[in-house]
Amino acid sequence: MDTFFKAALAAIEPVDQALAKQGQAHLDNLTKPQGSLGRLEELALQLYLIQEGQKLSVDPMRIYTVAGDHGVNAEGVSVFPQEVTRQMVLNFLNNGAGINVLAETVGAQLYVVDAGCCGGKYDEHPSLIQAKVAEGTANLAEGPAMTHEQCVQALNLGISLADRAHEEGIKVLGTGDMGISNTTPSTALYCAYLGLEPESMTGPGTGLDKDGVISKANVVHKGLAANSDIVKSGDAVGILAALGGLEIATLTGLILGGAKNRQLVCVDGFISTAAYLAAWKICPTVREYSIISHASAEPGHAAAVKAMELKPYLDLGFRLGEGTGAACAMFLVRSAANMFNDMATFADAGVAESDV
Amino acid sequence: MDTFFKAALAAIEPVDQALAKQGQAHLDNLTKPQGSLGRLEELALQLYLIQEGQKLSVDPMRIYTVAGDHGVNAEGVSVFPQEVTRQMVLNFLNNGAGINVLAETVGAQLYVVDAGCCGGKYDEHPSLIQAKVAEGTANLAEGPAMTHEQCVQALNLGISLADRAHEEGIKVLGTGDMGISNTTPSTALYCAYLGLEPESMTGPGTGLDKDGVISKANVVHKGLAANSDIVKSGDAVGILAALGGLEIATLTGLILGGAKNRQLVCVDGFISTAAYLAAWKICPTVREYSIISHASAEPGHAAAVKAMELKPYLDLGFRLGEGTGAACAMFLVRSAANMFNDMATFADAGVAESDV
Repeated sequence: MDTFFKAALAAIEPVDQALAKQGQAHLDNLTKPQGSLGRLEELALQLYLIQEGQKLSVDPMRIYTVAGDHGVNAEGVSVFPQEVTRQMVLNFLNNGAGINVLAETVGAQLYVVDAGCCGGKYDEHPSLIQAKVAEGTANLAEGPAMTHEQCVQALNLGISLADRAHEEGIKVLGTGDMGISNTTPSTALYCAYLGLEPESMTGPGTGLDKDGVISKANVVHKGLAANSDIVKSGDAVGILAALGGLEIATLTGLILGGAKNRQLVCVDGFISTAAYLAAWKICPTVREYSIISHASAEPGHAAAVKAMELKPYLDLGFRLGEGTGAACAMFLVRSAANMFNDMATFADAGVAESDV
Repeated sequence: MDTFFKAALAAIEPVDQALAKQGQAHLDNLTKPQGSLGRLEELALQLYLIQEGQKLSVDPMRIYTVAGDHGVNAEGVSVFPQEVTRQMVLNFLNNGAGINVLAETVGAQLYVVDAGCCGGKYDEHPSLIQAKVAEGTANLAEGPAMTHEQCVQALNLGISLADRAHEEGIKVLGTGDMGISNTTPSTALYCAYLGLEPESMTGPGTGLDKDGVISKANVVHKGLAANSDIVKSGDAVGILAALGGLEIATLTGLILGGAKNRQLVCVDGFISTAAYLAAWKICPTVREYSIISHASAEPGHAAAVKAMELKPYLDLGFRLGEGTGAACAMFLVRSAANMFNDMATFADAGVAESDV
């Protein structure tokens, strides 16, 4: 199990930065003032480096929305009952959720993954990947949420999801999550990896009131204390096992697998960015293959993103998860690729260049 | 001519705010934490009010990219020669520009409008509407850019573009501009309508250096001085005639016409927002029918938008114009409508609601 994981990590290669000059020269020859398409140009250049100087290719795109339950739910950290994880998975399969609508609108494939839902096996469904590692995690407030083996199994699941997509011609991935109470493990991961304080990082999630947020911050404190040895050790996989979740670790694997396969990964919001942070701590090169799709409305997200020196592409006040922000960013990815591929150059169009 | 314009203004009606309650109730019944799709929910509610409580309908969408030349170009306020306006119109017709790619990517129709280009008539083209009011404006640094008649003719052109779209079933419009030197009249309009200072509102446009920006701010000062009587009068149409441009006045008409026809208007960046400001000063109700698509990278845009208490939907560092920001926002408009129409409710999906 560890062998598969280590082999995947070893196969992640940095992009060739020497290609940036010719990619930028192409962008600067297109019929627009230099840099005037802003972050779309930045995104096109990232794609150009990832795709090794080829004409850019981004479709079809695929979102994996990964679900899991959380032992820490017993601490009363969510306004929704745990059963909602399972109910929402069924809602995904029935095309009724936010991510269904947004994936369809942007034209991305959507697969739902059971990485750790309570309640047993689901009925078979063509959009469902059943790969349950366990029936939820243990309560992180009392000790490690996952064993090392469970965590690596979830990481490998995520890598294999990226691999399956790669074999099927997918060049752009989106991450999505579903898991009642999963802002709590995500907050704990931000605090552990970045040395941030639970008080400043804990937010309302799906709708806690002020007292609920205070109580949730205390649960994060308890989790950090109950796992203090592993937090102090700085072991990236160990921290993910201790404070993460099965869907989070799977998303970490997906982000690592995407980097291995030279796929651009559109990282969704608060939960997915915690998975990204774990991936980045495991292998900093993932930065070259990922974008932070949007700024989550969950208050801690801004501080986490700032600490990683990243800049989300969208800020629409989303705090839904499921991959909804990633779906929106995929429109920008397609726009960037089309702009790079299809705009005329000054010479081709007979347009005069600026005199600067 | 004035009769047509006045009749259009008189036909603009406010939305029925009483519908907001049932629209919000529908949003809150969808399977997501309340408000968790942020600004997409805000946009859906605006559409619901505009479309009078019907199932939302947004496609097909249409962008009008309106072109015109500017006498103030003689003051050396742009790094591009004036001929580029005409060259870019041809580039639009040959599908080579940024707006072509982004309109195609979002699936919006694109029409190019000659409202005031120098250089005579163009060859006929199915995507080109030739409605030239004049061969460019006069130099606003020396006096009024347009006569009252020219300005009203351009306003009426814009209204008729909205009407034509309305007759063809278009419910969502996007504004786009092309006109070398047109950040100068736009800046002058912001200063005149909002009482802002040329020094703080003037930016590099397509690429002026620091000295160029200072010189451009002086030109704006000269324009405000040369037209001080009309600026002091506060006459909204008079100020537009004195300091605007033919493409800007046409876009003002398009925004007014969209409001009249209950079409949502996606206002593009720095130039289009100046056109919006004129429309808003002429008829404040346009606010209910418009969105500011994106935050332009042109520095004065933020101050102008703030002064109008508006919040752009996107911030991608664009400073290209042409309607490129509006095209991107149209993806959000479609997403909002699909979310409102197609997501399952808690009851339908058998998902438990939160306990708050």
